[in-house]
Amino acid sequence: MEFSRPRLLVLGGGQLGRMLGPAAARLDIATTVLDPTPACPAAATTDAQIVGSFADYTAVVEAAADVDAVTVEIEHVSTAALRDIASGGIAVHPDAAELETVQDKLAQRRALGEAGVPGPRFEALPDTEDNAERHAAAGRFGLPAVQKLRHGGYDGRGVAVLPGDAQADALLPGASYLEDLVDIDRELSVIVARSVSGATAVYPPFEMEMDPDLNLVRAVLYPARLPEEVLTRAEDVARRAVEALGGGGVHAVELFATRSGEVLVNEIAPRPHNSGHLTIEAAETDQFEQHLRAIFDLPLGSTRMRGPAVMTNIIASGAAGQTAYRGIAEAVTGEGAHVHLYGKRQSRPGRKMGHITVCRDDRDDARRAAEHAAAVLTVTGTAQTGR
Amino acid sequence: MEFSRPRLLVLGGGQLGRMLGPAAARLDIATTVLDPTPACPAAATTDAQIVGSFADYTAVVEAAADVDAVTVEIEHVSTAALRDIASGGIAVHPDAAELETVQDKLAQRRALGEAGVPGPRFEALPDTEDNAERHAAAGRFGLPAVQKLRHGGYDGRGVAVLPGDAQADALLPGASYLEDLVDIDRELSVIVARSVSGATAVYPPFEMEMDPDLNLVRAVLYPARLPEEVLTRAEDVARRAVEALGGGGVHAVELFATRSGEVLVNEIAPRPHNSGHLTIEAAETDQFEQHLRAIFDLPLGSTRMRGPAVMTNIIASGAAGQTAYRGIAEAVTGEGAHVHLYGKRQSRPGRKMGHITVCRDDRDDARRAAEHAAAVLTVTGTAQTGR
Repeated sequence: MEFSRPRLLVLGGGQLGRMLGPAAARLDIATTVLDPTPACPAAATTDAQIVGSFADYTAVVEAAADVDAVTVEIEHVSTAALRDIASGGIAVHPDAAELETVQDKLAQRRALGEAGVPGPRFEALPDTEDNAERHAAAGRFGLPAVQKLRHGGYDGRGVAVLPGDAQADALLPGASYLEDLVDIDRELSVIVARSVSGATAVYPPFEMEMDPDLNLVRAVLYPARLPEEVLTRAEDVARRAVEALGGGGVHAVELFATRSGEVLVNEIAPRPHNSGHLTIEAAETDQFEQHLRAIFDLPLGSTRMRGPAVMTNIIASGAAGQTAYRGIAEAVTGEGAHVHLYGKRQSRPGRKMGHITVCRDDRDDARRAAEHAAAVLTVTGTAQTGR
Repeated sequence: MEFSRPRLLVLGGGQLGRMLGPAAARLDIATTVLDPTPACPAAATTDAQIVGSFADYTAVVEAAADVDAVTVEIEHVSTAALRDIASGGIAVHPDAAELETVQDKLAQRRALGEAGVPGPRFEALPDTEDNAERHAAAGRFGLPAVQKLRHGGYDGRGVAVLPGDAQADALLPGASYLEDLVDIDRELSVIVARSVSGATAVYPPFEMEMDPDLNLVRAVLYPARLPEEVLTRAEDVARRAVEALGGGGVHAVELFATRSGEVLVNEIAPRPHNSGHLTIEAAETDQFEQHLRAIFDLPLGSTRMRGPAVMTNIIASGAAGQTAYRGIAEAVTGEGAHVHLYGKRQSRPGRKMGHITVCRDDRDDARRAAEHAAAVLTVTGTAQTGR
């Protein structure tokens, strides 16, 4: 096979593109990112940025005029543009159909359900503004339950936990559905790569510890603290889920392991994912190179883990403003500590500004070190302007 | 310590800058490279390229106008510019004095000799065009010997092995010196980081297998095939060598391990080095991040190796012309194989176009896999022009 500097367009230029850039360079893939923010995080590690909106049909079509392949680092892109680009013979992974399924969480649930992939029981809420009618439907479904908006939710937004005695005004407005409130033991993420020719490679499950206040991943742990039998089942469920959606590239399958021993799919991101960042140091092939291998139909890489690892996110605190870091020297000091800053010029409380992965022979030791590093490395905004 | 997006200028934009870029991004260091070739290899992974000559005083001074620190990926830069930049309060590592010492191999030998660092016996050849006089001096020094040009040699250029019966016309023209022809058992490289506040971190010795035809590194092996006692001595010699030169940043100390058990310094590169590329995957901290930690005075990272590894260079063959790769799919297939392409647009026979590192539990197994991967991945030039 000839492989001479293929040209890739990435829709979105945040931290995922920033971490994809080095993998693309290793394979000499010329990478352009489309992002509305000038000097976006991915601009520093890729060949070029086009300033524009990935949700805008014309911007996407124009940006793709001169490339061999298109991928995304965010789901909320113009799928109409992707459909037309693909019909012009350019490789688009994940494809428009998969992205549309994933953009609508109810469609995603239905697609997985039809494929027999285990998930919580679910049901659409009536598409009406009459809250009494919706509340009555919720009662028939059975409370307590979780209400999820079909569109636009992420990092815990667009999700409401409805207790058994929830009143009608507790319902979120907007097109939505209900799911059973699952008795969660642990949350898992399984990174699955599916190459465009159909080969799959599955990483072992990573455990996600959620921050209940920020509704963000607080820590990702490998190995996960669950019996081998559950983990093996999680890998199987995740692989089936990705095959059900049918797209190419890396996918993150978020799963609930329940106290009764079930493994249920929560949701799928058809792209590299926060929960897979520890693969950069801890896996033989990182999720970003794996994504590129998948979409350019190279053989998928080994998903073997080189040892235990724990990742913690670095979340901004304090004031909003121009980004300032404190405590980097202490954060990089720990054995096996790897600091990744995302280069976001503007800091806002709660914003993901970087992550730290610690590799140690012992997972719990790695976890203490990662939490320490994340605690000493603070990111805040300053009033200072300029560079 | 505040550490808010420091700005770094790198003189030279080849593969070393290309691999430095991702490490700089992780620490949110805004990196510009100065290189005469538009779209140089480092441009893809750094914030910006200035097209210009790193050997040109004015170009270097102008490029450094707006940065906090300057470093190099090549020794042959304008040290006059670096001296003036440093006197203006910008951090320059390695500094002009060290670079001048290293640029003149005889001065380097003398500096190491004065510090008591073991090396081959050496002596300057008379600075004359009278070959008979130089030949007579060589006879007094004792042949066989190695003649080395003081300036400009690299990858085996500027070096002549003079046999015992060498005639006067065998001498290279130019300012040069003689060294004892060492009875080499193995060649080693020890990567030593020295932070600007004086801390050092030393990687275990890597073994370099040279290609006798191309005079390039053919393979770098870890662990090296020498007794522990010799390796420990090599680390000690390398650390003393770097302390003798006094500059900040990562250094590669190339060493001869002789059949009689000596460890002698061959030469020093005051920068990340081909022999250290396997640290990207195989060491806890790679040489590029280590270099940045050293020059920005962050704590140095762990030099622990995560397991055996072998690196082989990917050398262009066939015609000169626009770069084309073949065999990438097979090259990335092996367990633990990591392909790094340098993005050089023009291929010339003998040019370094990339490298492959293979990590395996067994070094000799890794070596076979690395040599296989380097054999199947061919890089040639094509007549095709355009992108």
